[in-house]
Amino acid sequence: MPAISTKGRLMPPSPIRKLVPFAEAAKARGTKVIHLNIGQPDIASPEVALDAIRHLDRKVIEYSHSAGYERYRKGLARYYKGVGVDVTHDQILVTNGGSEALLFGMMACFEPGDELIIPEPFYANYNSFALAAGTKVVPLRTVIEDGFALPPAAAFEKLITPRTRGILICNPGNPTGRIYGREELERLRDVVQKHDLFLFADEVYREFCYDGTEHISAMTLAGIEQQVVLIDSVSKRYSMCGARVGALITRNAELYDAVLRFAQARLSPPTLGQIASEAALATPAAYFNDVIKEYKERRDTLVNGLNGIKDVVCPMPNGAFYCVAELPIDDSDRFCQWLLESFSVDGHTVMMAPATGFYADPATGRKQVRLAYVLEKALLERAVTILQAALQAYPGQR
Amino acid sequence: MPAISTKGRLMPPSPIRKLVPFAEAAKARGTKVIHLNIGQPDIASPEVALDAIRHLDRKVIEYSHSAGYERYRKGLARYYKGVGVDVTHDQILVTNGGSEALLFGMMACFEPGDELIIPEPFYANYNSFALAAGTKVVPLRTVIEDGFALPPAAAFEKLITPRTRGILICNPGNPTGRIYGREELERLRDVVQKHDLFLFADEVYREFCYDGTEHISAMTLAGIEQQVVLIDSVSKRYSMCGARVGALITRNAELYDAVLRFAQARLSPPTLGQIASEAALATPAAYFNDVIKEYKERRDTLVNGLNGIKDVVCPMPNGAFYCVAELPIDDSDRFCQWLLESFSVDGHTVMMAPATGFYADPATGRKQVRLAYVLEKALLERAVTILQAALQAYPGQR
Repeated sequence: MPAISTKGRLMPPSPIRKLVPFAEAAKARGTKVIHLNIGQPDIASPEVALDAIRHLDRKVIEYSHSAGYERYRKGLARYYKGVGVDVTHDQILVTNGGSEALLFGMMACFEPGDELIIPEPFYANYNSFALAAGTKVVPLRTVIEDGFALPPAAAFEKLITPRTRGILICNPGNPTGRIYGREELERLRDVVQKHDLFLFADEVYREFCYDGTEHISAMTLAGIEQQVVLIDSVSKRYSMCGARVGALITRNAELYDAVLRFAQARLSPPTLGQIASEAALATPAAYFNDVIKEYKERRDTLVNGLNGIKDVVCPMPNGAFYCVAELPIDDSDRFCQWLLESFSVDGHTVMMAPATGFYADPATGRKQVRLAYVLEKALLERAVTILQAALQAYPGQR
Repeated sequence: MPAISTKGRLMPPSPIRKLVPFAEAAKARGTKVIHLNIGQPDIASPEVALDAIRHLDRKVIEYSHSAGYERYRKGLARYYKGVGVDVTHDQILVTNGGSEALLFGMMACFEPGDELIIPEPFYANYNSFALAAGTKVVPLRTVIEDGFALPPAAAFEKLITPRTRGILICNPGNPTGRIYGREELERLRDVVQKHDLFLFADEVYREFCYDGTEHISAMTLAGIEQQVVLIDSVSKRYSMCGARVGALITRNAELYDAVLRFAQARLSPPTLGQIASEAALATPAAYFNDVIKEYKERRDTLVNGLNGIKDVVCPMPNGAFYCVAELPIDDSDRFCQWLLESFSVDGHTVMMAPATGFYADPATGRKQVRLAYVLEKALLERAVTILQAALQAYPGQR
């Protein structure tokens, strides 16, 4: 039997994946698992999007243009104008979710072996796309003590080598919930400009800003217009993760052309998802107001609850729907597994994402966990109660 | 401005892509272009699939399992059983079209630099996925004179090196329309077994067999059960190219696990496409009978028409909905462009795919074109008339 390819391109299973069998075993024992580990919102998709699908008036589910339906891209251009980003429809390429936008962007911008600096903790799948594209990820540590703020220019420059070709940020951040301010972004812009880099900006959580925090898109940074690669997706914005509709946006015509050729090889992004996504552009403002209000309340419930537990530190995030908390534990992989295997309160336990998966060196995240607040408040309150009791009972305390 | 990646991973635009501006210019001049160049059927998608979409009863378009909905995979396993392929749902991984199945398969089976033998002429995008995966394509010539039959084992063995790790076939064939018989497949099986290779079998045209020709799946070949990687898709079967739902099927548990990890990085295949595809499993036999009957008539119309033109040779294909014809011309790129730029009959012209794009050495295909018979018979008759007149008028005759 021929051997499969195991060198280099296969990520080891993530810490969350490793927990899945333990969660399944807990459920098999009758324990209810409160899932704080996932980014699938429970919020309903906009009615206008569901209606467009229900009123499908075509006979053939056929290919769209490889860059996505032109009418959808024109609608997207109007949407971006509305959030202060001035782009035309032929600078937008519709992809199979933000995932494909990341992969195509890396393959088009970087030669194998080129280096991409990413502030950590970061979304673990960035590693997977980088590995598939042959891009070397260079992590730049940010710390919980100052709410995961972007490090100074000097910290970036210490990591820059002749192979450095780009920086990737997630703003608002997964897993941190951090929104970068103007000063942080302009500092980053200066580094990108000085060293002639690409700036990948994953802004899929753009709509999720709290406490009046303004979201500033990397596409608005003056002087690096040709260097910014915007990664976007309808998954979180409209709670339509399964539509698999994202986008890569660039004003760099040569780069657009290269990405388009990767897109042509896979023929077309999903037609039905695009129909839903185009309709979703007409989602009323009230939908977002309700969603933001709901998430803000959930955030407050969870983060205030966490900070009320002895020796737990959780900076109040101002965006996305995640937070990272530091716990008085020896090892987050072990603690999260123990919660599923050996602990419950009134038949309930909690599943969280060990932060070990969000750092290049897992040891950096061994006292931290990521919690997603995509569940209703009553469940979040219950989760905090369970966590408080668990931290008292857990044998592996710090 | 930073340079983009141009080394190695970007395919040059295909011969068909290069023709697109000429087709657009022709249309702008008022010429009607009969598209024999594309594989997007005009056949309606099954009503059961469209109905399932119109009756969507969920509130959140959420992620499915990374391998696809389990219920859909169980339905697929029953479908495969019905076509003589015995697999279980956990040997099926749902992908973003057949495209992603090919890419994941290559990334999981081969190290960068490993060699994959593909009988040519072959589907041009195989090159793109191989390039993205770092797989080296080694073409094995098949010839129009014997209807693109599979070459003898010795021809494969002449190409085998220490880096050879697989063979890829498309059966029924795009662009040839060839269906491999049992003898051809068993000969191939012997090579695969002897040299411990993977056998990729792209069988997306499985349903399209004419004149009573039986389709034999590579999954039924005894002795290489662990080595066959089946590539499938709903695109052609149900005329649902835009659903973007394909599958990779393997009985090799280690390989399945590796592919699943690539799938987990991109989270989920499209939810809406899967709903349509699951419903499409209940497509009545009458749908396929009508479609096959229609395609057979179209094939006869086109291929008999072509063979009625002086010095045109077109083997009668028994599968898929393409044929490759040899024409009395100097260069198929030039001829196809000339048809769009300089020729029309009663305001109509024809667009075809130069076969130069289907061979590793474009020169091999310079007298050949691929024609898709996905249009109604009257248009195909008109296309034959135009082609006959064009071959008399074309200045670059052989």
